[in-house]
Amino acid sequence: MSLIVQKFGGSSVADPECIRRVAKRVAESYDKGNDMVVVVSAMGDTTDHLIELAKELNDKAPEREMDMLLATGEQQTISLLAMTLNAMGYKAVSFTGWQAGIITEAVASKAKILSIDPKRVEDALAEKKIAIVAGFQGFTAGGDITTLGRGGSDTTAVALAAALNADYCEIFTDVDGVYTTDPRVEPQAHKIDRISYDEMLELATMGAGVLHPRCVEVGKDFGTRIHVRSSFNHNEGTIVDDMGGRPMEQQMAVSGVAFDRNVAKVSIFDVPDKPGTAAHIFDTLANEHVNVDMIIQAGQRKNRNKISFTVSADDLPKAKEIMEEMKWQFHAQETSYMDKIAKVSIVGAGMITNPGVAAKMFNILAENDINIEMIATSEIKVSCAIHEEDMVQAVRALHKGFGLSEEK
Amino acid sequence: MSLIVQKFGGSSVADPECIRRVAKRVAESYDKGNDMVVVVSAMGDTTDHLIELAKELNDKAPEREMDMLLATGEQQTISLLAMTLNAMGYKAVSFTGWQAGIITEAVASKAKILSIDPKRVEDALAEKKIAIVAGFQGFTAGGDITTLGRGGSDTTAVALAAALNADYCEIFTDVDGVYTTDPRVEPQAHKIDRISYDEMLELATMGAGVLHPRCVEVGKDFGTRIHVRSSFNHNEGTIVDDMGGRPMEQQMAVSGVAFDRNVAKVSIFDVPDKPGTAAHIFDTLANEHVNVDMIIQAGQRKNRNKISFTVSADDLPKAKEIMEEMKWQFHAQETSYMDKIAKVSIVGAGMITNPGVAAKMFNILAENDINIEMIATSEIKVSCAIHEEDMVQAVRALHKGFGLSEEK
Repeated sequence: MSLIVQKFGGSSVADPECIRRVAKRVAESYDKGNDMVVVVSAMGDTTDHLIELAKELNDKAPEREMDMLLATGEQQTISLLAMTLNAMGYKAVSFTGWQAGIITEAVASKAKILSIDPKRVEDALAEKKIAIVAGFQGFTAGGDITTLGRGGSDTTAVALAAALNADYCEIFTDVDGVYTTDPRVEPQAHKIDRISYDEMLELATMGAGVLHPRCVEVGKDFGTRIHVRSSFNHNEGTIVDDMGGRPMEQQMAVSGVAFDRNVAKVSIFDVPDKPGTAAHIFDTLANEHVNVDMIIQAGQRKNRNKISFTVSADDLPKAKEIMEEMKWQFHAQETSYMDKIAKVSIVGAGMITNPGVAAKMFNILAENDINIEMIATSEIKVSCAIHEEDMVQAVRALHKGFGLSEEK
Repeated sequence: MSLIVQKFGGSSVADPECIRRVAKRVAESYDKGNDMVVVVSAMGDTTDHLIELAKELNDKAPEREMDMLLATGEQQTISLLAMTLNAMGYKAVSFTGWQAGIITEAVASKAKILSIDPKRVEDALAEKKIAIVAGFQGFTAGGDITTLGRGGSDTTAVALAAALNADYCEIFTDVDGVYTTDPRVEPQAHKIDRISYDEMLELATMGAGVLHPRCVEVGKDFGTRIHVRSSFNHNEGTIVDDMGGRPMEQQMAVSGVAFDRNVAKVSIFDVPDKPGTAAHIFDTLANEHVNVDMIIQAGQRKNRNKISFTVSADDLPKAKEIMEEMKWQFHAQETSYMDKIAKVSIVGAGMITNPGVAAKMFNILAENDINIEMIATSEIKVSCAIHEEDMVQAVRALHKGFGLSEEK
């Protein structure tokens, strides 16, 4: 008998039929003797519809009022799910963000959770009721309703699981779990049974994951075990946890291959080699909300450097504008822009203790005649920027080369 | 410069165009230097749509969950109206029932307001902001969201006006104010400029009014002046207040003629004339939720009585069932049922000091060959049950006979 938090996203509760299916899934877990807390998002396209309505009246609506509006979406789902469970003979009671004690920063539309005082949820559980909590929302110390922004409902679920000291948090999704890579690119990709928070974070931030990094971070900070699984079947999904008990020496060096097609590379040549140059460039980019990913600085000739970096392809026009200004400021010789770039990464906690993993990656790419534009490494990740046309081949070669395509 | 509470119903905020019209109306009052609080209902058929959705999942949904669901309707309207005012350059901030401090009984779906602590509304007013408050909803001391049931938004507005010590509460509606009778029945009906709470209560409970009796009662208890007026024009509507300063002797004896077509008359003959007989009959009806209006008991022969009463025509089948059982229990001789009955009433605070008003009513009906089935009187009202086919003629004759049709 466990205390389980389950989270279902908007497409899982899109219509009454879907809500009934979710209710059955929750009831199944309850019937096994578990204490159940369920976090749900707004139904299907409710949020989009509300945003549209708001835009008709004010295309720059105050964020506080947008949060007030959007929070109704989850409030509708929680009550409808509670009703459905009641119709099935289960005692269920719904709680908004503020009723569940989810206190956030006073920052509308993308508030971070500060603390959770889940007293009412605990009281409901003590009475053997199923507690249904609105995802994606909280309230400020001043009593304003806030929403949590992207990944909000996942974060609500994991944070609530942490606050309740739940045994685990099940995140239901439309895939079977976390894969070694995207099966649409490499059909031999297979589900990962268990993965560490750090690896999941690397996979998630590179767009390969099904979990938003925010919720993984919360899970990591509080040691909350997350189970990512399919809402369409009862297969075991992927467990995300601290991997406690895994023998250090036997672990696989590489857990997965991630990629991102939507990358652009920017270079500026012949900038002065003195302190503050790079800082000025990247400060300016940050102030204009251009997120920079990989960065390389190389000596070019005496006292002059070449700086290259990657940005999201969407940000390229803005980056271009800024860099042309920099070229003028620094009397730089040249700038260049490449927009058909992709990033492939190998991720694995085992890399730290397995020297040569990076070298092996470069060799595999070289064997496949794939040119590497840039390289970036962390303790559990090696990323290479390559030409987009090479991406599929690179992913497949790395997936095979690191033994991920073999039958386990 | 006044503190004004304005209330707009669901049809006034049915779509973005309507919301913009309401915002303009609010802004006009604000521009005159008034402190503004606005109470709104859910948009158009939002509530009906939500009820439908709920019924699909649970046709006997727990009322707590229904309230959780329905309260989202007003929450959407307040945020949308606040956004619209912000787009027009006004500072507006929205508050749910709980944020506005509206504490109710812990009775879902038809909670009564216990108290209001409008601190956040007052703070907003102090900052010269327009405060937008969700009608129809509040919360319990335990933190559950409740809805107020029929007449809820009007009641929110008047109660909030009382708590804020507002100068008056404007209720916007689709008619110009309170009329001497329904203009569809008597084209010479005219708008009443000013009416007392008690008269308004009598008119409201008889279906002639545009205000729900609940909000009139709150207005009466706290001396809050209510202004019922049209949302389509700027004409003065009807002021409902304590009529302070009105010279008692000059007032019109009759303020209005009310009617109700949907009445049925029930009679039971030859029941025992002993204590408890009537009590037993009316207790049983009350337990079955049959509301009884007019009651007459008349001695029929030695120790036997005839009891007649009226009910809503909708309740006649249930009343019939109960009375047939009573007939058997009391060995009564006979029962009778008439469903084509209407009630016409004259209402006026002046009746108390104008003897002969009731007699005049009976005379007017007699002159028109209208048979009176039953009579009931209060201090400010005389009602007669008549045949439905006579109703229009009766209303017109009374309206004329009491001088209401004359040009003022």
